[in-house]
Amino acid sequence: MEPAVRIEIAARDGAARSGRLITPHGEIPTPAFMPVGTRAVVKAMAPDELWSMGYRMVLANAYHLAARPGPDLVHELGGIARFMGFRGAILTDSGGFQAMSLAKINSINEEGIRFRSHLDGSPIMLTPESAVTLQERLGADIMMALDECTPYPVEHDRAQASAEMTARWAARGLAARTSSTQTLFGIVQGGVFPDLRRMSARQITAMAFDGFATGGLSVGEPKAAMIEMAELSVSMMPETHPRYLMGVGTPADLLVAIGAGYDMFDCVLPTRNARNGSAFTSAGRVSIKRAVYARDSRPLDPACECRTCFSFTRAYLRHLYMGGEILAARALTEHNLFFYASLMRAAQAAIASGTYRAFSRTVTDRIAAGEGESGKAKAYVV
Amino acid sequence: MEPAVRIEIAARDGAARSGRLITPHGEIPTPAFMPVGTRAVVKAMAPDELWSMGYRMVLANAYHLAARPGPDLVHELGGIARFMGFRGAILTDSGGFQAMSLAKINSINEEGIRFRSHLDGSPIMLTPESAVTLQERLGADIMMALDECTPYPVEHDRAQASAEMTARWAARGLAARTSSTQTLFGIVQGGVFPDLRRMSARQITAMAFDGFATGGLSVGEPKAAMIEMAELSVSMMPETHPRYLMGVGTPADLLVAIGAGYDMFDCVLPTRNARNGSAFTSAGRVSIKRAVYARDSRPLDPACECRTCFSFTRAYLRHLYMGGEILAARALTEHNLFFYASLMRAAQAAIASGTYRAFSRTVTDRIAAGEGESGKAKAYVV
Repeated sequence: MEPAVRIEIAARDGAARSGRLITPHGEIPTPAFMPVGTRAVVKAMAPDELWSMGYRMVLANAYHLAARPGPDLVHELGGIARFMGFRGAILTDSGGFQAMSLAKINSINEEGIRFRSHLDGSPIMLTPESAVTLQERLGADIMMALDECTPYPVEHDRAQASAEMTARWAARGLAARTSSTQTLFGIVQGGVFPDLRRMSARQITAMAFDGFATGGLSVGEPKAAMIEMAELSVSMMPETHPRYLMGVGTPADLLVAIGAGYDMFDCVLPTRNARNGSAFTSAGRVSIKRAVYARDSRPLDPACECRTCFSFTRAYLRHLYMGGEILAARALTEHNLFFYASLMRAAQAAIASGTYRAFSRTVTDRIAAGEGESGKAKAYVV
Repeated sequence: MEPAVRIEIAARDGAARSGRLITPHGEIPTPAFMPVGTRAVVKAMAPDELWSMGYRMVLANAYHLAARPGPDLVHELGGIARFMGFRGAILTDSGGFQAMSLAKINSINEEGIRFRSHLDGSPIMLTPESAVTLQERLGADIMMALDECTPYPVEHDRAQASAEMTARWAARGLAARTSSTQTLFGIVQGGVFPDLRRMSARQITAMAFDGFATGGLSVGEPKAAMIEMAELSVSMMPETHPRYLMGVGTPADLLVAIGAGYDMFDCVLPTRNARNGSAFTSAGRVSIKRAVYARDSRPLDPACECRTCFSFTRAYLRHLYMGGEILAARALTEHNLFFYASLMRAAQAAIASGTYRAFSRTVTDRIAAGEGESGKAKAYVV
């Protein structure tokens, strides 16, 4: 029997690949970016807007939804997708990362993660088994195995012990599954140590997961190390399975990762940066609060076809942002998510036409020639 | 020559009337509610959403826009409507009320209102003439004459002196006009004193304004006094001109005022209450934070056809509201504005069919039978 979630590759260009991720709640063209909807809402966005932009899968967070409104309520109301009024598929992160980063007190041992809720301080135990049970109850199409994400920097011994425990947790998570329509992805860890990444990838890909993810990156390591580890990890994943790079990244990062063979991504950058007044454009970042935009009658990105760029000038967006208006967060979030969706569509087309390398270089150069990834450099070019 | 803004009455039912307000930027079916877009944005809403709900005119505030981003910038970018990306007409309040309520230091004398900006403390002088110049520069289709709005309670002598000064200011405002495409409405004052309302109405309606407004209500007076003054004021306004009740009110208030012959309304209630978690429905208020809605899978208002009621359950809206999500403010604002727009459409139809009295009573009774206007009373009935 085929797994409920699987990937069909339609085209390859070097290591890059494009196709469709098939899920019980629709097909997602790949490479695919998933907007982050931690609490069953992509901040500032309505679900029909995500759909209109082409998004067919959203990431939610099991830890946050377990804390509020609780898995029973979400289950009773039909699972995350129905609860939030989204017609597409849902991937849930296990919540291990949040349990470690947000919870007030925690201890991690072989059994799992013991912590106190960041909301009310109540004690919670998250095990590899309970993480699966929780995600099944939340109605995820793709569940993520509980893993331990080591900080950066970390010593080799500590990273090795952690990656080995993550592999044992992975096996326990797989054994705990009860649903044939909800799939489970395993996560490769190993910090920034090539030998540990190889070890973890061998261990995780030896198990019967429906897809494989690279975790533990974008936690403070240098960009070059992030890219090296992402490339190394994906090179050891089977061609037959979906490959997911977690928590990455900027448009340029995504283009590198697609070139290395990843199919799926999630990142808070387009949504969080939007709320901080920062827009991704074809010519680099636009930090809308800058005084230079006060009388600028151009759209955020003259090359963009989103509703924000159709409706608003930079001067008006700056006025909204300076006044703390909700519409500023909405408009910039919608633009950034549209930009990411367009980037994925363009990457899919470039792979299909065998021009991915040239495409990737052109886009990256154009971003670098404008304000760059930082949004602080150089003159703005349109 | 006909004024740039005028009303054409198509149907009457008792004192109630329906028709079209004709402006240089489109026609507005009346009775019409105007969403409040103080700073050239209806909080949480995109301009195309207002349009889709049927709104063709928005109220903005000259005082706020003068402070930020400034009249020159708004003028340079095409006036308020173009600045905010709205295809319809704009009415601006003069800002006199805000100068009095928000400014840190102010003195009011025959010349005008002297105050300090609530943003940076800079001294500003608002006169009847400068208020018109400012609103012309902002590109309003309908400008409001500078008036003095007395507080409640206030003594008769003080209210009389104030209303008389408002009339002298009105004449000065009319004389200061320079644009033939931008119209000016006069404002009737007089507090809660019938003799002063009559005096003010006689004085203001004797001048060549393009429309007439009732001001100084909804400032803390009892509901019965508000209604009495609103009815008395409108009864003295000419049938030929648009009649505007400023700053009122709840759905039930609007139905009373339409019955008395008003054509236009504005109020922060649908937008501000939405951000505080309170929805207007056909069965009264729904305060979404109440625990009783935690597992409620019904829409806010089963009788409503808005996007919020199509997309979301009360349980989900409560989850969003409790989490401080922007989408909560968006969804409730959209619902409330849709509810107000639908109420206006239904009132127009009832007047056209000569059934306004029965319609008004039915709607008001249904609201009262549910949670009522307060949102706190009785069982919820659907």
